[in-house]
Amino acid sequence: MPILSVEQIQSFLLQEFPQNTVTIDSLSEQGAWLRQKIDQSHLRPGGTVSGPVLMTVADIAMYVALLAEIGIVPLAVTTNLTINFLRKPSAEADILAHCHLLKVGKTLAIGEVSLYSEGQTDAVAHVVCTYAIPPKK
Amino acid sequence: MPILSVEQIQSFLLQEFPQNTVTIDSLSEQGAWLRQKIDQSHLRPGGTVSGPVLMTVADIAMYVALLAEIGIVPLAVTTNLTINFLRKPSAEADILAHCHLLKVGKTLAIGEVSLYSEGQTDAVAHVVCTYAIPPKK
Amino acid sequence: MPILSVEQIQSFLLQEFPQNTVTIDSLSEQGAWLRQKIDQSHLRPGGTVSGPVLMTVADIAMYVALLAEIGIVPLAVTTNLTINFLRKPSAEADILAHCHLLKVGKTLAIGEVSLYSEGQTDAVAHVVCTYAIPPKK
Amino acid sequence: MPILSVEQIQSFLLQEFPQNTVTIDSLSEQGAWLRQKIDQSHLRPGGTVSGPVLMTVADIAMYVALLAEIGIVPLAVTTNLTINFLRKPSAEADILAHCHLLKVGKTLAIGEVSLYSEGQTDAVAHVVCTYAIPPKK
Repeated sequence: MPILSVEQIQSFLLQEFPQNTVTIDSLSEQGAWLRQKIDQSHLRPGGTVSGPVLMTVADIAMYVALLAEIGIVPLAVTTNLTINFLRKPSAEADILAHCHLLKVGKTLAIGEVSLYSEGQTDAVAHVVCTYAIPPKK
Repeated sequence: MPILSVEQIQSFLLQEFPQNTVTIDSLSEQGAWLRQKIDQSHLRPGGTVSGPVLMTVADIAMYVALLAEIGIVPLAVTTNLTINFLRKPSAEADILAHCHLLKVGKTLAIGEVSLYSEGQTDAVAHVVCTYAIPPKK
Repeated sequence: MPILSVEQIQSFLLQEFPQNTVTIDSLSEQGAWLRQKIDQSHLRPGGTVSGPVLMTVADIAMYVALLAEIGIVPLAVTTNLTINFLRKPSAEADILAHCHLLKVGKTLAIGEVSLYSEGQTDAVAHVVCTYAIPPKK
Repeated sequence: MPILSVEQIQSFLLQEFPQNTVTIDSLSEQGAWLRQKIDQSHLRPGGTVSGPVLMTVADIAMYVALLAEIGIVPLAVTTNLTINFLRKPSAEADILAHCHLLKVGKTLAIGEVSLYSEGQTDAVAHVVCTYAIPPKK
């Protein structure tokens, strides 16, 4: 259940990660939807979105879904991320990411992220990601 | 056993991935060493190198180690990547990546990448990565 | 869409994997449900189902879901499996596994498996698994 | 640096995991070596050692390497395990596992395990594994 709004997290990201280009479409009990606009700089040979772009979007999607649930904890950090690339993303569509938390514990949170080329039903990549949550002071 | 030189692969990367900022330090039978210069744009809250930067370097390290072994195959693509983040990278040192191929098959290649902050002995992250090799025409 | 029945696959498993103790509850377009009865031999210190038991069930769940989709291909083999352990399984409930295929390609298939202690809503473990499909002769 | 002997850990395993069939060959600063004797019950179609057997050996190898380093902590549990299957194991050789710890932190330990068919140089599988270490009382 999100306790922060899209605007609160977007504003945190803007301040702390000025280089971030991923935006939040929505937050709900069913998970977070994020978006990466795609341009020439995100592509690789074969006219497709590069793997690191997808990993970046997935990592931020998990971070946003987690902060939405536990509040702003800037120092939550990724400890493990596994990505499977499933299909060739379109070079001409935005990447949409849906993150769904599998478990939020006291020190570890685990979530899964499905990545799509906007307008397509089948995911282009699937990610499972663990974040370590620092102890509260 | 590398069949291509550092210069041959660097020149391929420059042409096909103009946005790439990772460079090759060396190639040998013991694996490939790559380098990402670190500046403010690579950092995240807590004064450390962001996870996506490390994933990007690891993915390119595997790509370079593979191409060095099998020749220029631009359409080799990552199918699976697992990263474990081990220690906080220094904000003031370059990231060095060492990739060692575990298996090069006809259709799949698997390698492992250790990532370091230059000057430190212990790895900051560890990656296992699978690439699919397209069939020769 | 399954092209084989529970009975067909169960009979194949019985013949080829006589040591297997996992059974199939159902097969449908929404995926495969499997079951491992739990007894003392599956437990570890702390009164919980051991990790290897969960990994075994997940691997077989993926194998069954895949064979249901592509037919009996005994030599399909796991190439990659990532498991995240989420919660302590009950020592007194069967383990149920649900496998959902993310992609079935010509040479690789990827699926995700959620594992439950029967009667509980939250998964005890989550698995992503890749199988290599041998070429048809 | 191991603080426990092979005999100390073997005796703990015998008592707490009576169903375990993996034995310890050696423990040193360079890591732990373990062995699984292979018989008909470990095989699958194609005359090879089944995946779950390899995962079981890897998980125990990591457990042993960790306990050797931090002392007997029965409730240390696997949180994440990623295995890549590299080559077909021999049906007629023991499986040897070498575990090397990448990081031992206060709450998480990460290690890598290479699995071999005895007598062969190239690994049959590669595992990265995370254990959660319960807080001391």
